[in-house]
Amino acid sequence: MISERMKGLVSNNSVIRQMFEEGKRMAEEFGAENVYDFSLGNPNIPAPAKVRETIIELVNREDPVVLHGYMNNAGFEDVREKVAGSLNRRFGTKFHAGNILMTVGAASGLNCALKAILNPGDEVITFAPFFVEYKNYVANYDGSLIAVEPDTSSFQPDLEKFEKAVTARTHAVIINNPNNPTGVIYTEETIKNIASILERKQKEFGSEIFIIADEPYRELVFTDTEVPYITKYYANTLVCYSFSKTLSLPGERIGYLVVPDECADSKELFSAVTIANRVLGCVNAPSLFQKVVGECIYEKCDVNFYDKNRKKLYEALESYGYECVKPEGAFYLFVKTPTEDDSEFVEEAKKEHILVVPGRSFCCSGYVRIAYCVAYDTIVNSLPGFERLAERYGLKK
Amino acid sequence: MISERMKGLVSNNSVIRQMFEEGKRMAEEFGAENVYDFSLGNPNIPAPAKVRETIIELVNREDPVVLHGYMNNAGFEDVREKVAGSLNRRFGTKFHAGNILMTVGAASGLNCALKAILNPGDEVITFAPFFVEYKNYVANYDGSLIAVEPDTSSFQPDLEKFEKAVTARTHAVIINNPNNPTGVIYTEETIKNIASILERKQKEFGSEIFIIADEPYRELVFTDTEVPYITKYYANTLVCYSFSKTLSLPGERIGYLVVPDECADSKELFSAVTIANRVLGCVNAPSLFQKVVGECIYEKCDVNFYDKNRKKLYEALESYGYECVKPEGAFYLFVKTPTEDDSEFVEEAKKEHILVVPGRSFCCSGYVRIAYCVAYDTIVNSLPGFERLAERYGLKK
Repeated sequence: MISERMKGLVSNNSVIRQMFEEGKRMAEEFGAENVYDFSLGNPNIPAPAKVRETIIELVNREDPVVLHGYMNNAGFEDVREKVAGSLNRRFGTKFHAGNILMTVGAASGLNCALKAILNPGDEVITFAPFFVEYKNYVANYDGSLIAVEPDTSSFQPDLEKFEKAVTARTHAVIINNPNNPTGVIYTEETIKNIASILERKQKEFGSEIFIIADEPYRELVFTDTEVPYITKYYANTLVCYSFSKTLSLPGERIGYLVVPDECADSKELFSAVTIANRVLGCVNAPSLFQKVVGECIYEKCDVNFYDKNRKKLYEALESYGYECVKPEGAFYLFVKTPTEDDSEFVEEAKKEHILVVPGRSFCCSGYVRIAYCVAYDTIVNSLPGFERLAERYGLKK
Repeated sequence: MISERMKGLVSNNSVIRQMFEEGKRMAEEFGAENVYDFSLGNPNIPAPAKVRETIIELVNREDPVVLHGYMNNAGFEDVREKVAGSLNRRFGTKFHAGNILMTVGAASGLNCALKAILNPGDEVITFAPFFVEYKNYVANYDGSLIAVEPDTSSFQPDLEKFEKAVTARTHAVIINNPNNPTGVIYTEETIKNIASILERKQKEFGSEIFIIADEPYRELVFTDTEVPYITKYYANTLVCYSFSKTLSLPGERIGYLVVPDECADSKELFSAVTIANRVLGCVNAPSLFQKVVGECIYEKCDVNFYDKNRKKLYEALESYGYECVKPEGAFYLFVKTPTEDDSEFVEEAKKEHILVVPGRSFCCSGYVRIAYCVAYDTIVNSLPGFERLAERYGLKK
């Protein structure tokens, strides 16, 4: 009874989400403290205290008819101004409220952007490994996602392969920085190179190619490496942001989409993403949380917590002989599996009550993703299991 | 730069939403108290006090990591159980949590349902006048919306015309009850007749045809007429609900979708709508408000407020000679325009600072929709303008 397209999706339901459900089942069977669930990017640290205080203040102070009511589909004007102002202050941009669409998280922002620009048959490029949901987002609008194979020495985009992948049908490039699942930060040099390739290709094909920057992890950075703000390097850039990770609010579905004035047909494009937000059924981003993030625009969860996890896990796994991609941002560790068959390793790990996601779920076999946004004790208690696995595979030096 | 499909949408941007923007502009120019904006279904009465109390209690009591975190894409299990329980208690149904998908309002629920079932070229029937956004929702999934012309004597669906409209390509029928824009309630007899026609057609074509019940106005009923719960009359029924109107929370985007066990391939269908919710980018319904509506499931805004508006407006307009469809539910009055050109009447009304939406926006020319979910004073103060309009058109008896 379901559509042909959904049939494929139902039978290949998200591996990550399935594992999340399996984790809950295992926690019931073995006790939550004996299951090490690294499957989902669900922040484990509380929202900053100011979030709670702001919610209480808002519901006590504001007229509920306005606070919980409809507004312009693009979002509350004052919140959009605050978002623009915070970007300008941090990145030296010149945005105004008219550049900001408040969205139901970054995922919905991506959908609005893709719906606004894609014609059937258009190609969207991204860099493997990548958040596999991009495939579905692009398919929603009859586009096809082209994955550029990774340079596994650095996990920076392979620019030669990228250049070859750009065709006359390319209408967008999704860049996820810091990267899920590797934790790698694409450097300023990388972004400059991508921008210059795209400038050239736009001229060659007489087309407009958009960069869609997916940046939910922008604030989760543990080193001095800067995450370039791409609108400064390339005019046709749309930025999708979510407060899910920065403020530990993933369930609240609150983020925004930036359409800079420099974009081709910027005003028409802004109308298009706003209308996409409406006709896809979101109508507007949740109203109370628009106001909350407006008030908490400079707040940030305690990133040191993730950093402590990152160091502990990275150092331990390296010492057991695992080969890890050194993570600088986000809260993921991407680890080379001691066997080429990453699914086999995932199954072996389960026997140690360790849940990790196979690299093939990110179009990069031979690796697993470990989401270390968990309690520190979970990291510590999982280590003997990781060590036994290393021994079983003969990794231990 | 925008997609071909969006071009049409951008140039025909929602008349209702444009009017909402124009209302704000006029309020600035003439003062809010001198503009009578009946354009948008934005509830004017506050959410019940318990909503505020519940929000404060939840943020003070619950672990923020859970309260604002990811859950199963279908929603919090306990909330889904409460929703199922409340439906069972009120309508004698036998739903369980597994039948309930929490959604980003009813609009998003409709999108999830349509994405789950539609193949390109499928037909979806609805009854004019109707919320014109249905066209866009159906087009999102390459279906086409077939509007059955109204029986303007009662504004109950014209069943003969409906029966003729059902073809082998019909895959769904959207029923909006109580109806936007007429305020009419489709009776039990109407629903039984629609169900029996569909049963027959399903057999004739060997197909499955879903009723998608869009019920954001279910609780806004001012007479003794019952709003039939359609799952009890027809197995292949999906129900889209929103708390927007019942709890005055339209900006919060919180609702649910019911997939009864009786539906064909119910489990697969439930997976499909849940995955649709994920891949369309909503991921899940806003988490705090899931908990809020779970706690406030038997709460209701003060319907008497709307009833008072309804009576005042209806009686006044009738006394001026306007022909009104008698509204029993929702918060809309559908009024025959004294000229066939409803757009002309809308422009004339603007001269009286009265903003109403032309019937053609609901596929029913020759009428206007008046959303009376406004302050009582707005109704009272608008009446002289309506009276002058009636005189100008020679209506006054």
